Amino acid sequence: MEKHRSAPTLDDVAKMADVSTATVSRCLNSPDRVVEATRKRVLTAIETLGYTPNFAARVMAVKRSFTIGAIIPTMENAIFARGLQSFQEELHQRGYTLLVSSSAYKPEIEEEQIRTLIARGADGLLLIGHDRDPKIYDFLSQRKIPALVAWSYLPDSKLPSIGFDNRAAMFDLASHVIGLGHTQIGVISGLVDGNDRARLRVQGIRDAVSSSGLEAGNLTLVETSYEIENGAKAFRDLMNADPPPTAILCGNDVLAAGALRQAQEMGLDVPGHVSITGFDDIELARIVSPALTTVHVPHREMGRKAALQLVEMVENQTAGTGEQLSTRIVNRPSLGKPALG
Amino acid sequence: MEKHRSAPTLDDVAKMADVSTATVSRCLNSPDRVVEATRKRVLTAIETLGYTPNFAARVMAVKRSFTIGAIIPTMENAIFARGLQSFQEELHQRGYTLLVSSSAYKPEIEEEQIRTLIARGADGLLLIGHDRDPKIYDFLSQRKIPALVAWSYLPDSKLPSIGFDNRAAMFDLASHVIGLGHTQIGVISGLVDGNDRARLRVQGIRDAVSSSGLEAGNLTLVETSYEIENGAKAFRDLMNADPPPTAILCGNDVLAAGALRQAQEMGLDVPGHVSITGFDDIELARIVSPALTTVHVPHREMGRKAALQLVEMVENQTAGTGEQLSTRIVNRPSLGKPALG
Repeated sequence: MEKHRSAPTLDDVAKMADVSTATVSRCLNSPDRVVEATRKRVLTAIETLGYTPNFAARVMAVKRSFTIGAIIPTMENAIFARGLQSFQEELHQRGYTLLVSSSAYKPEIEEEQIRTLIARGADGLLLIGHDRDPKIYDFLSQRKIPALVAWSYLPDSKLPSIGFDNRAAMFDLASHVIGLGHTQIGVISGLVDGNDRARLRVQGIRDAVSSSGLEAGNLTLVETSYEIENGAKAFRDLMNADPPPTAILCGNDVLAAGALRQAQEMGLDVPGHVSITGFDDIELARIVSPALTTVHVPHREMGRKAALQLVEMVENQTAGTGEQLSTRIVNRPSLGKPALG
Repeated sequence: MEKHRSAPTLDDVAKMADVSTATVSRCLNSPDRVVEATRKRVLTAIETLGYTPNFAARVMAVKRSFTIGAIIPTMENAIFARGLQSFQEELHQRGYTLLVSSSAYKPEIEEEQIRTLIARGADGLLLIGHDRDPKIYDFLSQRKIPALVAWSYLPDSKLPSIGFDNRAAMFDLASHVIGLGHTQIGVISGLVDGNDRARLRVQGIRDAVSSSGLEAGNLTLVETSYEIENGAKAFRDLMNADPPPTAILCGNDVLAAGALRQAQEMGLDVPGHVSITGFDDIELARIVSPALTTVHVPHREMGRKAALQLVEMVENQTAGTGEQLSTRIVNRPSLGKPALG
């Protein structure tokens, strides 16, 4: 076998560029923070030597990997896409690279991905929602890995969270729907097991029904996973009730898009025959016809603030304070008054 | 300072469970390949000892990290979501965890992410399309990192690819549109610089125009990034031409959804006034009204086959052969014959 020279090290690059190893690290990880001339000198040395930062060298040099992991429940629809994009943009500004895993809403896969991202040296983690096995929280705490929850704000949770009050947001929308005169309410919810966002949204609807003086019997609920086809199927089932609902509140815009499509196939006018609402205000909500009344979630603000908070937790070893963001109802033509009975 | 016991090792787990270290690795990475009783014994030992697989231990034990990296241009719309989901599912079956990065269609960010994923120990990489700086190919080859391209099949490329012929797919659709009698063709393309898929789709349209005997002057093209708003804006610009196009071919379904929305806002009937087509056949294509005629891309097959091929390349150190997959035209109501002039 041919004998190879050993791989170039961070030190070799620093010597050739006549800078400190810390400056080399900064060039690799946060180039915006290094002046142009120095950056060019370092990059030339890196190219000339064929240097590749590796785990050991980077950890020794700066005690950080400048990598953040995020685990989201799904990449299949755009629920998390916009927030994640702004999370990544802000991280990039701060010199961090984002690695994303998707758990397919399965707790055991999320756990495996948390372990993988930590094993790969992630400096911090972004997780979605609060529902998970307590042993994962113990594990994160033992390993002292900064972790932040998004998409659901709870004041007294094990991890700090940047998100909104899912219950209150859906309570407001449901109260608005009931205020228009609807008394037969259908709900197409995501699966609530292991999903605090879904569970709290249903709770918000129940609270609105009871505080408006309607009977619990005026509420019919179907639970299904967040797919367009499932929204369509649930809509058909709900409309078979006697009396059928005059308004159907969906757990997110994806389910609502499916419900809308099914209404169209059944020849039912929306909102003439039945009103349909969504949650999230993703692009889909404006594309469907009629456009969806929904709850606007501040995706970009949430992503940006989560990045700032998590970097702060990583760099200054703080615990993180979390922040509750506001949502608002967006009125579009899919919601109207009930037809006169 | 308190004195800590050193962290448990792979060896400690193997001893407690009375198995080889290779079996412990397999339990962690490919649990499906380990019989139930052994798996339980190993997992009990892991829990009891509080063992966490770390980079060094795993590399020593199996010389692999069981991590695959994928870099996609965007997570913001669902173009890559379905294919990536089946890529991940197949990897999971084989004991690998997927980490995803999104480059926002920026070559310099893709390069940074390639370096990060390799530094984090990724066993192999999935990249989208073939257009990138030759030095990245040199770098991958020097580092001997198995890498596979998806979403674009080219027979003579630097990396093996699993995908389809973007030129031929769009040639077929454009020929079909011209065959219906359309002579004024508008095109809303993605940005072609650095994006072979976009460039080849435009080439397919140009080839169809010239092989059908139409003049190049019958073709009007707008190039813009893949966002709904941009599709809407480009549609408005194209319809200002004199004569306006009777059919507008869009580089993907996202641009086509924007064009459709704009047609609706301008009070133009689709396909009565103008036909609109997409590319990809993501869920959006069936949700918009009228539903989009588009090119069906075999997202799930592509993701699954890419996973099988990449794992094969990683585990058996093969070069990868690549595979060309078929696309087909899906006819839906957004395309019709031109109105009689």
